[in-house]
Amino acid sequence: MTYFTTEIARRSVSCSVVILKAPAIMAVIEISPDFGWVIMVFIASQFVLMWMGIKVGSARKKYDVKYPKMYSDTSDMFNCIQRAHQNTLENYTVFIVLMLIAGVVYPRLAAVCGAVYVVSRIVYAQGYYTGDPKNRLKSAFGYIGLFILIGTNIYIAISMLGFV
Amino acid sequence: MTYFTTEIARRSVSCSVVILKAPAIMAVIEISPDFGWVIMVFIASQFVLMWMGIKVGSARKKYDVKYPKMYSDTSDMFNCIQRAHQNTLENYTVFIVLMLIAGVVYPRLAAVCGAVYVVSRIVYAQGYYTGDPKNRLKSAFGYIGLFILIGTNIYIAISMLGFV
Amino acid sequence: MTYFTTEIARRSVSCSVVILKAPAIMAVIEISPDFGWVIMVFIASQFVLMWMGIKVGSARKKYDVKYPKMYSDTSDMFNCIQRAHQNTLENYTVFIVLMLIAGVVYPRLAAVCGAVYVVSRIVYAQGYYTGDPKNRLKSAFGYIGLFILIGTNIYIAISMLGFV
Repeated sequence: MTYFTTEIARRSVSCSVVILKAPAIMAVIEISPDFGWVIMVFIASQFVLMWMGIKVGSARKKYDVKYPKMYSDTSDMFNCIQRAHQNTLENYTVFIVLMLIAGVVYPRLAAVCGAVYVVSRIVYAQGYYTGDPKNRLKSAFGYIGLFILIGTNIYIAISMLGFV
Repeated sequence: MTYFTTEIARRSVSCSVVILKAPAIMAVIEISPDFGWVIMVFIASQFVLMWMGIKVGSARKKYDVKYPKMYSDTSDMFNCIQRAHQNTLENYTVFIVLMLIAGVVYPRLAAVCGAVYVVSRIVYAQGYYTGDPKNRLKSAFGYIGLFILIGTNIYIAISMLGFV
Repeated sequence: MTYFTTEIARRSVSCSVVILKAPAIMAVIEISPDFGWVIMVFIASQFVLMWMGIKVGSARKKYDVKYPKMYSDTSDMFNCIQRAHQNTLENYTVFIVLMLIAGVVYPRLAAVCGAVYVVSRIVYAQGYYTGDPKNRLKSAFGYIGLFILIGTNIYIAISMLGFV
């Protein structure tokens, strides 16, 4: 009886899978309400990106770097401000996907690591904005968040594949 | 009895979760078939990116900007074409992740907002291609789509966390 | 009776969905353990990006291109190394999202296509590092992986929407 109802439960799920033409049922993604924190960190990261973009906009006026020029030939200060934004963008996709995948299984851990990383990017930009590129390196603590996210992703992958 | 079978149903789900070493069952993601529209908009956005890339390729020939040079020192027209593509790429990750997260819960709304944004990027590029960077601002309506997606993401996050 | 227990099973699922304020249950995402391969390819792609970043870092010393300068005015060799990294980043978001969406439904196919694409980016960079931009085109086989991922995404979308 117990087994029977379980089967029914399974069937009610597998019906919907036909829509996706998926082969066989293996695992179901469950999202903890704590995943809300992951989305919050994602939203926060966008505001950090917007802030960096606004900084570049102001610097364009201050250092007279008109569109469509990307970098200044004369002002290293402008280029520092531009690079702070661009470097963050260059690393952004990897960060967000790492956090989202980790967040499906370990939402709180992912959100904390994500928050550490996002804060580190503010420190990175503030350092770069001094005009001395070396100061951007004070954000190195952000790698702690990033490396834990990478480790979590690897752990999830090898767990799914049954290697641990 | 009812309670009992519910438990069974829950258990049939939790079995598979063991694979992911997830803690406790909280919520299950359900994807509406309408999510297909979200994927369609994602595919459309790629063709828009390809079109912008092809424009840059043609402009490289026309304005004689050889690889590996990124920007021209002499042609602002080329730089406008290059920047239209690059700026779209710089904003792309945020847009796609916003649309995908919103799309899991509100697929039609997400697809419509996404489509508005993708069309706005075509207008952005067409404006930039005139050679006068100011004309790219005619795409401002795209922010409507983007801001609704941001609002939807915030709403989903605070709903999950039980704040509303 | 059978119908009744099915209803219960549905209800046990729909309870949790209330958290997300989702409208009606349509389909449930199921993740095959094989999705672990997709995550593995994603992790591998990050190491390829890191390797490209390290190459740029070494080239900055060798060709004396100091931060915050992005491109060299004198060394095309440096610009080739910089562009190999940047072009990979420019195409990265589209690639990752394509692989993840395809991977939810067809994890093995997505992982194989993803692996082909990631290897092609190594070939792209190695070609670009010769200093002759034409050599980057030896990576064209990567488009096979990419186009199959695009086709798979389109097929998933139209399947979900009931067009096939």
